[in-house]
Amino acid sequence: MSADPRSYVHGRSDRESTRLHDQASGLGFLLHEGTCYPPGSNILEAGCGVGAQTLLLAGNSPHAQFVSIDISPESLAQAQERVLREGFTNVTFRQADICILPFRAGTFDHVFVCFTLEHIPDPLLALGNLKKVLRPGGTITVIEGDHGSAIFYPDTKAAHHVIDCLVTLQRQAGGNALIGRELEHLLTDAGFVDVKIFPRQTYASASIAGSSEAVRSIFIAMIEGVREQAIAEGLIDPEGWDRGIRDLYRTTEQNGMFCYTFFKAVGRKGVEDL
Amino acid sequence: MSADPRSYVHGRSDRESTRLHDQASGLGFLLHEGTCYPPGSNILEAGCGVGAQTLLLAGNSPHAQFVSIDISPESLAQAQERVLREGFTNVTFRQADICILPFRAGTFDHVFVCFTLEHIPDPLLALGNLKKVLRPGGTITVIEGDHGSAIFYPDTKAAHHVIDCLVTLQRQAGGNALIGRELEHLLTDAGFVDVKIFPRQTYASASIAGSSEAVRSIFIAMIEGVREQAIAEGLIDPEGWDRGIRDLYRTTEQNGMFCYTFFKAVGRKGVEDL
Repeated sequence: MSADPRSYVHGRSDRESTRLHDQASGLGFLLHEGTCYPPGSNILEAGCGVGAQTLLLAGNSPHAQFVSIDISPESLAQAQERVLREGFTNVTFRQADICILPFRAGTFDHVFVCFTLEHIPDPLLALGNLKKVLRPGGTITVIEGDHGSAIFYPDTKAAHHVIDCLVTLQRQAGGNALIGRELEHLLTDAGFVDVKIFPRQTYASASIAGSSEAVRSIFIAMIEGVREQAIAEGLIDPEGWDRGIRDLYRTTEQNGMFCYTFFKAVGRKGVEDL
Repeated sequence: MSADPRSYVHGRSDRESTRLHDQASGLGFLLHEGTCYPPGSNILEAGCGVGAQTLLLAGNSPHAQFVSIDISPESLAQAQERVLREGFTNVTFRQADICILPFRAGTFDHVFVCFTLEHIPDPLLALGNLKKVLRPGGTITVIEGDHGSAIFYPDTKAAHHVIDCLVTLQRQAGGNALIGRELEHLLTDAGFVDVKIFPRQTYASASIAGSSEAVRSIFIAMIEGVREQAIAEGLIDPEGWDRGIRDLYRTTEQNGMFCYTFFKAVGRKGVEDL
């Protein structure tokens, strides 16, 4: 979620929406393990997008109440439709900008943010705002990827080049595709205490059923989503692009491997931090 | 362990020997967790170096018998001295080349190899030789790092450059500092079955006591060990080197982080693979 919804680097196509849901269901356990909120607690999900994580949050904490916000009305409509279709009644949706939150100080018991800070020009400002609407003693959970953590075999310059194109485009749009490694200092700098980082690493190869399909439908599909933009911006030519994408697919085939690390951070607002 | 002991990229200095023991004790649980051999079993440790892993093997499986080999008589002498000093009596040392093993087929119940294949020009040949001396149904455990897995904050080109110098020197010496990601296909190609990969990731920051010290004494010390060679080979100039090392140290200070993944692979020799 960026200040300008049009600058969202991954786009808002149907394929992208499907990709985000694939990502959430395939990685659900890896990312959400350990995230379960007590009955009656009141949680802000900041940057819910099309509701991919919302479904998991609502399902894993059925007796907690969620307020899920996003800057994009289109994404919110999709999220709401999906959550209702799944029968969850513990989520309220609201259009809002993470940088200008329409809530009173101390409104929420907990805050959850996933794949959102990576798109924001000033993540520290966003974290400061989120801390304001969190009650003293409440927790924040942030999950972000880090494309620099992608290691794969066979390893080729062409494959790194297409990944670098996404990193560059995301930076040009004000985001940071390498933000995972920064979560500890960001939460600490924003004034959260007891900050703990839980790296969640995936390893995909032919020996793990379904893992290579997930690399294709989640990671490679995400890279492929910026093809036209990368070529239009002069970051790569069509032949280089196609070679890099072919090399990425190669890592999901016989004898290949692909590894990626998500960073999950949990911090707390001090009890005397009013 | 390389075919030519003089080409061992990390050198054989006292500081290097201390570094290897620091590495083994600091990372002992992370790497050896799950590696425990039944009483009476007969294990080949191929490439024991100065005995850093030998101590952990012998301690974790006190009723198993180890034969630890290395190509370097100096390293073996240090390993033997250290193991005796610690009071272990279940290890026999023998000078041998992993590529010309002086054992009959099927001699060992299990084989253990740690930080050795990364120095060998033909790891597939070595694995084939190790499979020969393993009994049908026996297991092989291989642990290797992968310097491409190093991600850190602050992230600078200068820091990557000094790491790349070690990767290049190791490749020039016939090794591969990025071999971790290749363990699955190497073991599979060598004919082992039921190959499983266990990535073991470390996360170091000021919030985890002792972790940043370990990055300095293990990883950065290893990089620093090739300074003169990297400059002599024209891979970098002294100013660039010093800047890169300073930047690496910076990742172990306030607000910094350093992440690294070791790959542990376990495979089995088929029961009908004679």
